[in-house]
Amino acid sequence: MNYISGGVTAAIGFKASGLHCGVKNDLTDKKDIAMILSERECSAAGVFTLNQVKAAPIYVTKDHLRDGKLRGVIVNSGNANACAPQGKENALRMTYAAAAATNLDPKDFAVASTGVIGQTIRIDAIEAGIPALAATLSKDGSTDAANAILTTDTYVKEVALTIEIAGTAVTIGAIAKGSGMIHPNMGTMLCFVTTDCDIASTLLQAALESTIKKTFNRITVDGDTSTNDTCVVLANGMAKNKRIDSEGAAYDVFTQALRTVLEEEAKLVAGDGEGAGRLIACTVEGAESEEKAELMAKSVVASSLVKAAMFGTDANWGRVLCAIGYSGATFDPEKIAVKFFSNSGEVLVCQEGAGVEFDEEQAKRVLTEKEVNILVTMQESDAKATCWGCDLTYDYVKINGDYRS
Amino acid sequence: MNYISGGVTAAIGFKASGLHCGVKNDLTDKKDIAMILSERECSAAGVFTLNQVKAAPIYVTKDHLRDGKLRGVIVNSGNANACAPQGKENALRMTYAAAAATNLDPKDFAVASTGVIGQTIRIDAIEAGIPALAATLSKDGSTDAANAILTTDTYVKEVALTIEIAGTAVTIGAIAKGSGMIHPNMGTMLCFVTTDCDIASTLLQAALESTIKKTFNRITVDGDTSTNDTCVVLANGMAKNKRIDSEGAAYDVFTQALRTVLEEEAKLVAGDGEGAGRLIACTVEGAESEEKAELMAKSVVASSLVKAAMFGTDANWGRVLCAIGYSGATFDPEKIAVKFFSNSGEVLVCQEGAGVEFDEEQAKRVLTEKEVNILVTMQESDAKATCWGCDLTYDYVKINGDYRS
Repeated sequence: MNYISGGVTAAIGFKASGLHCGVKNDLTDKKDIAMILSERECSAAGVFTLNQVKAAPIYVTKDHLRDGKLRGVIVNSGNANACAPQGKENALRMTYAAAAATNLDPKDFAVASTGVIGQTIRIDAIEAGIPALAATLSKDGSTDAANAILTTDTYVKEVALTIEIAGTAVTIGAIAKGSGMIHPNMGTMLCFVTTDCDIASTLLQAALESTIKKTFNRITVDGDTSTNDTCVVLANGMAKNKRIDSEGAAYDVFTQALRTVLEEEAKLVAGDGEGAGRLIACTVEGAESEEKAELMAKSVVASSLVKAAMFGTDANWGRVLCAIGYSGATFDPEKIAVKFFSNSGEVLVCQEGAGVEFDEEQAKRVLTEKEVNILVTMQESDAKATCWGCDLTYDYVKINGDYRS
Repeated sequence: MNYISGGVTAAIGFKASGLHCGVKNDLTDKKDIAMILSERECSAAGVFTLNQVKAAPIYVTKDHLRDGKLRGVIVNSGNANACAPQGKENALRMTYAAAAATNLDPKDFAVASTGVIGQTIRIDAIEAGIPALAATLSKDGSTDAANAILTTDTYVKEVALTIEIAGTAVTIGAIAKGSGMIHPNMGTMLCFVTTDCDIASTLLQAALESTIKKTFNRITVDGDTSTNDTCVVLANGMAKNKRIDSEGAAYDVFTQALRTVLEEEAKLVAGDGEGAGRLIACTVEGAESEEKAELMAKSVVASSLVKAAMFGTDANWGRVLCAIGYSGATFDPEKIAVKFFSNSGEVLVCQEGAGVEFDEEQAKRVLTEKEVNILVTMQESDAKATCWGCDLTYDYVKINGDYRS
């Protein structure tokens, strides 16, 4: 497995583009629409938010995915098209415009939106922008597309890697956006994955569902599950590997690679949470089951108090124990150890459920890094899980105290 | 039902005191230990945190409550005595010292602690302070006691009221503390209730459990369920009402009054959440069940994004819909209306699940008040529930970024 550049256009046969059309404030020139397109028909799979309040494009994309086939994705940022008048109609109009500009069928497109909830989307601006978007589709367009789907994100989130499936090189690439309202539940904020792997859509869907649970569903920024969470995978088969149409070794290699791509994307999203200064990873090990380890780890990275302590580089491990205590998991508190570690070393702060003496200066150094790990060790068995989040900062409050304006 | 002053010493036969002994930093003179004592033996009831990691005093208090009888409470702030070496021993030593200073039995005392987790409590300072604490017990001591249990709280939380039970005047009073790590689950941070009502301890426990669910369990500050949540009620019978030893009219009157006291305390705790600028109440009405209404309302007041919007006086109602959408309740998003109201009037922002035009200036005025209400109206039936929280501010992050120092 080798990481490569190229994001969502790394795989054979995919192009992408992104530009500013005016969904975002016209005074900025921030990109706000993106397109991803495959030369050939793709096996396609998708997972979506479990929020009862779903954005309009989610209904349209689910409908278009019914036959397991897609050619591309049309997406805007700056407006979530959720709880907005004419939401469904406007989401459909995005696919009509994309189809007209590419000589395809509207049903060939997944559609997604991200941004503010409850305001009517500037569909005229989108329709006016889509011909130029289609005209600028390019093999180097991944970064433009990755930029065009951002809202309060501070960096693009592109990942790509190659694997070998029974002797054939296969590429998987992705772009994602996150930032706020990030507590994915069976979906993710927005993530688009392309691959030239030849794989049946039912197996693609199975691979996506199993990996989403261990990647995007293990991150949180603020505990708020968005109305727009969408992750769509397009597989166009142009790598010419022997088609994966049943479980087995090839399916496992592909699924593991997909998990790696999505895990990298998930960490990029968690580390770029709104206002975040650092990525916080919590690993619970020595647990009796992976489910239990995940429940505990998720509770730690979701705790406002742990997140604020991480912002303050304060080794306040009592909050870690508090968070695993209300996680819903049952365990013996007297058999828990807690350690913080990072590129600056490690510090053991709790053993057998009680505090141990530690060097506060060393703890500060460990916690000051951009990526901080919290390791909770139990004495039950050998299951483990890692979840990811970020610190809670003044900037999160600032960004969200007045997001609409 | 009449509100009166006097807090936890308003009922006949109760005294209280609070002073500084040195659990909190010796450089401050902030009160850090409190005692509440009844002249006579009391029927007693308690509810406690469901966090798997429980502070040591909770185990001791549960044990002392086993016979349904107590005489008083000994409590400290500044150290939670949770996950700390010699926790159980030190909690017991607090009751020994309280008993020695009052010529009672250690089992006559509930014990509670609140403050930082994981550090050894200064038990010597507490033991040295308890004789003076007992010597200063007074009929006017409620406010001193209410002060002595605070941590980052900014005001004392005393409530008292009188009711009439079959012609006899009965008083119920309480003190509480809250601030951070507030997301009570079957208990509450710390709340002590006294009453001169004559009531059997089994019925007192039943009344407490039923009212806690509708009061303290309906508030949140940060989603973190504390390790120390404790609510204890002492009923000494000195009002000389006909003893309540079965369900019926008298029990109902008492339970309703207890609910009022606990609801007032819960709102005081929510409104004084760490760093909070305003109390946020969310009422969901027109629901098919109270449980569902509560689930939805709790999700709204717990949402970091809603809380940050309230800080920014931003009528970002899309976040309210998002929060009820991931609450776990199922409903038809197209039959939801949302209104904000306060002492400065009201503003309708969403109808039939979609945004409506509103006056942003008027919305700002409504949201600038110290107490802001979010009303979610469904079209299912006539059940309703209210939950309380507070806004998310820079100060919450500041306070919790470096709480230990």
